Amino acid sequence: MSLPLNDRGLLLGDGLFETLLAVDGVPADWDAHLARLALGCAALGLPVPDEADVGAAAQAALSTAGLDTGRAALRITWTAGSGGRGLDRPEPCAPVLFATAAPSPAPAGPLRLITAATRRNAGSIASRHKTLSYLDNVLARREATMAGADEAVMLNTNGHVACAAAANLFWVAGGRLETPSLDCGVLAGITRARVLAWADAAGMPAAEVAVGHDALAAAEAVFVTNSLSGARPAQSLDGRPLARWPLLAELSATLI
Amino acid sequence: MSLPLNDRGLLLGDGLFETLLAVDGVPADWDAHLARLALGCAALGLPVPDEADVGAAAQAALSTAGLDTGRAALRITWTAGSGGRGLDRPEPCAPVLFATAAPSPAPAGPLRLITAATRRNAGSIASRHKTLSYLDNVLARREATMAGADEAVMLNTNGHVACAAAANLFWVAGGRLETPSLDCGVLAGITRARVLAWADAAGMPAAEVAVGHDALAAAEAVFVTNSLSGARPAQSLDGRPLARWPLLAELSATLI
Repeated sequence: MSLPLNDRGLLLGDGLFETLLAVDGVPADWDAHLARLALGCAALGLPVPDEADVGAAAQAALSTAGLDTGRAALRITWTAGSGGRGLDRPEPCAPVLFATAAPSPAPAGPLRLITAATRRNAGSIASRHKTLSYLDNVLARREATMAGADEAVMLNTNGHVACAAAANLFWVAGGRLETPSLDCGVLAGITRARVLAWADAAGMPAAEVAVGHDALAAAEAVFVTNSLSGARPAQSLDGRPLARWPLLAELSATLI
Repeated sequence: MSLPLNDRGLLLGDGLFETLLAVDGVPADWDAHLARLALGCAALGLPVPDEADVGAAAQAALSTAGLDTGRAALRITWTAGSGGRGLDRPEPCAPVLFATAAPSPAPAGPLRLITAATRRNAGSIASRHKTLSYLDNVLARREATMAGADEAVMLNTNGHVACAAAANLFWVAGGRLETPSLDCGVLAGITRARVLAWADAAGMPAAEVAVGHDALAAAEAVFVTNSLSGARPAQSLDGRPLARWPLLAELSATLI
């Protein structure tokens, strides 16, 4: 399969995606990912894909890639399709669905984080969804790589800590678990929600916050979360060594 | 031609484009567009396309579309190509070039503008370039269409007036021509530069400014510029009728 050159996902970044971990052919948190995709469609004004179609595309992608066993990164892409004139979508809009899969080795070791100059757009609903217009995240990651680090921390345009380039962000300060609130221009991460639910069930103090970089820079421990890597610790932030949070192993065990 | 499903332009909006007017098979301001594309490549860290390749792709696109005569919208797209892992580009990066052409009728009449809620990201260099991550502009235009207007005015995340969804923005206030400065998160429009050069040559007071929405709301006349439509007047902004600038016809004649 390939895509025509007039696809709006390609030309304008007009569309959405989901990235899931599949283990032995079974995608994790399937319903949560489909629900998030539907919320993204509502925000962008796109029709919602048929769930059975998405499931069939996902299974076909895993089989085609020979990933019916082992760990796979499964990506569902939903573009706004072809047509329209310039920025205007055609009426009706005819989105295109496709899925791809690639091996996803277990994450290796803690991350070196740097704070990127590239910021999340707090003035666009797109920053709360996993859209095909992901260049700011690419640029933030590129800043990290060029600085010899592994991943970037992004602030938003209001100066609040938002997320990592490809993950949600958590830190521990004074025994409390903190993560940026969704209105900081943050993706509603599936793993993020599971971490907050774990903290709630465990009676661990946790809060969704809108804070400046000082709060993060003063944190005792930092970790990032996404669907492929679970909870992954940071070993440093902008060159400052970070402690490993003693409860991270316990948390990680619940995310598998 | 079609594009593989792992192209980074499609998956992540990682790439650039240019839109040019071609008349009778001859693209206008060719050198200026190529120079701007090269600046975008430098900003995004992409290799620069070979000029002869771009020219050949453009001519082939015009011929294929049967647009060797008449007005055509010519689009050059330069994606970051296939490969890499997640956000990280492969090393070396192997961009993909393609061109498409479509009929471009002469612009019809003045525009109804509304001010969109979706803002330009003043915290990303991407907002100064014509990138494949154009969703914020799609969303702003969608706001305009849903409000019964033709085009959207976008502020940036600092609250300064930036541009229209698919054009640069000019207004006249107290006999002075004003347009947002490039550091407002504005594309360095080819037509924008020609308008400023025209004002300079004509001894017309003109300024590149960083101002809030009040300045625009108080303007006597507003017009937008891009490569396909030249200078196009606005008949209203957020429902308030606007005057036609008496010098617009004279300016437009120099842009053809």
